[in-house]
Amino acid sequence: MMNPAAPVDLNAVFAHIDAHRDAYLERLFAYLRMPSISAHGEGIGEVAEYIAGVLRGIGLQARLVQTAGWPVVVAERHDAPGKPTVILYGHYDVQPPDPLEAWVSPPFEPTIRNGRIYARGAGDNKGQHFAQILALEALLAVHGSLPCNVKVVLEGEEEIGSPRMAEFVRANRSALACDLVITSDGPVDESGQSTIVFGVRGVLSFELRAREANRDLHSGNWGGVAPNPLWTLVHLLASMKDARGYVTIPGFYERVQPLTELEQKALAQLPVDVEAVMRALDLERLDEPRERGFFERLSAWPTLSLNGLHGGYGGPGSKTVLPNEAVAKCDIRLVEAMTADDTFDKVVAHVRQHAPGVEVVRQGSMEPSKTPLDSVYAGPLRAGIVAAQGAEPLLVPALGGSLPDYVFTKILGVPAFNVPYANADEANHAPNENLEVERFFSGIRTGAAMLTALGQME
Amino acid sequence: MMNPAAPVDLNAVFAHIDAHRDAYLERLFAYLRMPSISAHGEGIGEVAEYIAGVLRGIGLQARLVQTAGWPVVVAERHDAPGKPTVILYGHYDVQPPDPLEAWVSPPFEPTIRNGRIYARGAGDNKGQHFAQILALEALLAVHGSLPCNVKVVLEGEEEIGSPRMAEFVRANRSALACDLVITSDGPVDESGQSTIVFGVRGVLSFELRAREANRDLHSGNWGGVAPNPLWTLVHLLASMKDARGYVTIPGFYERVQPLTELEQKALAQLPVDVEAVMRALDLERLDEPRERGFFERLSAWPTLSLNGLHGGYGGPGSKTVLPNEAVAKCDIRLVEAMTADDTFDKVVAHVRQHAPGVEVVRQGSMEPSKTPLDSVYAGPLRAGIVAAQGAEPLLVPALGGSLPDYVFTKILGVPAFNVPYANADEANHAPNENLEVERFFSGIRTGAAMLTALGQME
Repeated sequence: MMNPAAPVDLNAVFAHIDAHRDAYLERLFAYLRMPSISAHGEGIGEVAEYIAGVLRGIGLQARLVQTAGWPVVVAERHDAPGKPTVILYGHYDVQPPDPLEAWVSPPFEPTIRNGRIYARGAGDNKGQHFAQILALEALLAVHGSLPCNVKVVLEGEEEIGSPRMAEFVRANRSALACDLVITSDGPVDESGQSTIVFGVRGVLSFELRAREANRDLHSGNWGGVAPNPLWTLVHLLASMKDARGYVTIPGFYERVQPLTELEQKALAQLPVDVEAVMRALDLERLDEPRERGFFERLSAWPTLSLNGLHGGYGGPGSKTVLPNEAVAKCDIRLVEAMTADDTFDKVVAHVRQHAPGVEVVRQGSMEPSKTPLDSVYAGPLRAGIVAAQGAEPLLVPALGGSLPDYVFTKILGVPAFNVPYANADEANHAPNENLEVERFFSGIRTGAAMLTALGQME
Repeated sequence: MMNPAAPVDLNAVFAHIDAHRDAYLERLFAYLRMPSISAHGEGIGEVAEYIAGVLRGIGLQARLVQTAGWPVVVAERHDAPGKPTVILYGHYDVQPPDPLEAWVSPPFEPTIRNGRIYARGAGDNKGQHFAQILALEALLAVHGSLPCNVKVVLEGEEEIGSPRMAEFVRANRSALACDLVITSDGPVDESGQSTIVFGVRGVLSFELRAREANRDLHSGNWGGVAPNPLWTLVHLLASMKDARGYVTIPGFYERVQPLTELEQKALAQLPVDVEAVMRALDLERLDEPRERGFFERLSAWPTLSLNGLHGGYGGPGSKTVLPNEAVAKCDIRLVEAMTADDTFDKVVAHVRQHAPGVEVVRQGSMEPSKTPLDSVYAGPLRAGIVAAQGAEPLLVPALGGSLPDYVFTKILGVPAFNVPYANADEANHAPNENLEVERFFSGIRTGAAMLTALGQME
């Protein structure tokens, strides 16, 4: 066994990876062949055992931690006293493969075509966390030890919304003690450039239910006399967001943190061809407020979206009906330091004042998460990416969408980073999900290089 | 044959009606047994021939006038030179009887229970215009001639919206020349009191279609960047009607005629128990604008109703989708002297200014109709109702709903009156449609008395 205190020879690790391309692909394929569909409860337990076995095989201590749902696989190895402890988070469950007939090759028979691995889970997320695991394997094979301390945490319910992740983290706070979390999930930038993602927006979903008369009425005999729940919702909603694109619920923006200089700079450097976006979506304009930048809106500001609004007649032609109920489904994307509870309270207070008869029904929520761009770990991660890929990554202050990163930043209180490996057209959640073969190997190299760079921190 | 110039002995006519109750009911039942469902095209032609035969049988000249749809039955008799010529308008088609299983007795097997005739068409409209026809029969049987000149006009497409009635009236203007039109359709007042209805509101239906991106998007990745068609419609609709209940489309009210003193007085006399209405519908409040009276709103003001609004996710739970299209279905109830064309132009102009990307699709329309309360024929109709029923009718300036009365008032240019005979709970368009037996006979008497009173005009 080599000296764990000696510096890692990254070129030797990369050479080892290159020398094992076929074997690594074969091991990934074995993993991809096993369905683990959390939405159907199919194969999950077996796959948890399988990947725990893989982790043991490369030299980690692995166990299954039971939850009220599917178990979380936790594996660890502590070779580097005084060095950072990293959680590598991923999920071993996959989306259902439907519609099956749209797949060119079957979803659980991984196949390479045009330089891509086609299989359910290739990108989301088996291919990506398996690259992390193989990075550990390569480091251990070449160096005999890991340059920093590692805890691999793989959950089995991410594709059904991580309903027990917060509880799991709270219940296992000490076992999960760490300095930072690295996730590799989602795609790199549309341009193909790698990214380090420092945050995600949270989300709060709710319904507004308006009910007026106890039955549908005739619009001629009752219009303008009996209240119309669609008009009730239209006026309520118009009081919640103005036509300039600003949410007008009192206090809505009061917790929004102003962008730091670093964040402003990072957002300004994210490439976007607005004309091309509009062309691709057949849009004649972007939404209001247009005075804010594209990524500023997606990263730094909360939104109130109407996901659905339904009431009254929806068939062909006309029907002179006065409907008696209508429902609006909404989501709010939350940014630091908004919380789902506080925001929901503000929605309820606003509705009570403007339309007291409208019922507000809270649905799911997820808190926002944000890691400062000047985190001490940002530099080593960048250095690792540059060492493995030969190019600087883009820095993304926050994704527009929502992931449960808050369980790390808010419950564990540690910085969390997402370094995606998958191509932008990975087709996750869709038929013909795929991962470019070279991105898989680049992911293994990047994982090894990031851990190496973290191990070089003083 | 008696002297046609002699005064009608109304008591003798009433006695004749009383003496023929069984025969009259049997003749009505024979008519009700014949399905004539315009929506299905079922039995219509046969029933037109049948009712023309009935009219010939009592001594009128009857013919079927072909249209692009089902024929109009026209029958006439001119016994009273110098006296008014009346069109008695009705419709020989009926609504479909679905759902069949909800009928206590089969819809085309008329049955008397609890003093009511149960059958499809009992109230709407066979029972009512057949009462008019039997009034002619009784007058002719007792008096030998009719006290005024009569044209019976029965259409076969009322239940599908009278799509060819305007065209029919325009094409047969001289054959339809008359001094006034009497319809007996719909129910008497909720209180049971008879009414003379002088007008109806018109209606204009249209759709607002908002389409933004070429596909549904993820609300986290696109919310606040790609336009949301539901927000587009919410803000457009909120710009069309304010929360105080007033339509804010420029010029919307500019043609609305102020109520005459007679109309104000008539509206004030219409009975309504607002508390009872609210209890019956489980309403906690009436709609805005509450400063306007119940019947004032339904008779004298136009409305903009949302009949339906649909876009985005409508299933259980939440879905973080940004929908790409949404449709609002609207109707506007028109009052004198608004027109559907002018009103539609104003809607389009408003939409062009506030949401130029939204498509406005015109659907059906019907013009409003109004006969002055001080029409010279109003007095004789009141006198006839009092003579037959022993009580004054309520005067209704206009119904909230829409009927094609404008073809008489606007195309023929004559006053049109509706004197309904049916009970308020006739359940027209519903299972177990019914007509109170005594209202049927009262209708026959009323028809005879009104024609007699018209014949007494100098």
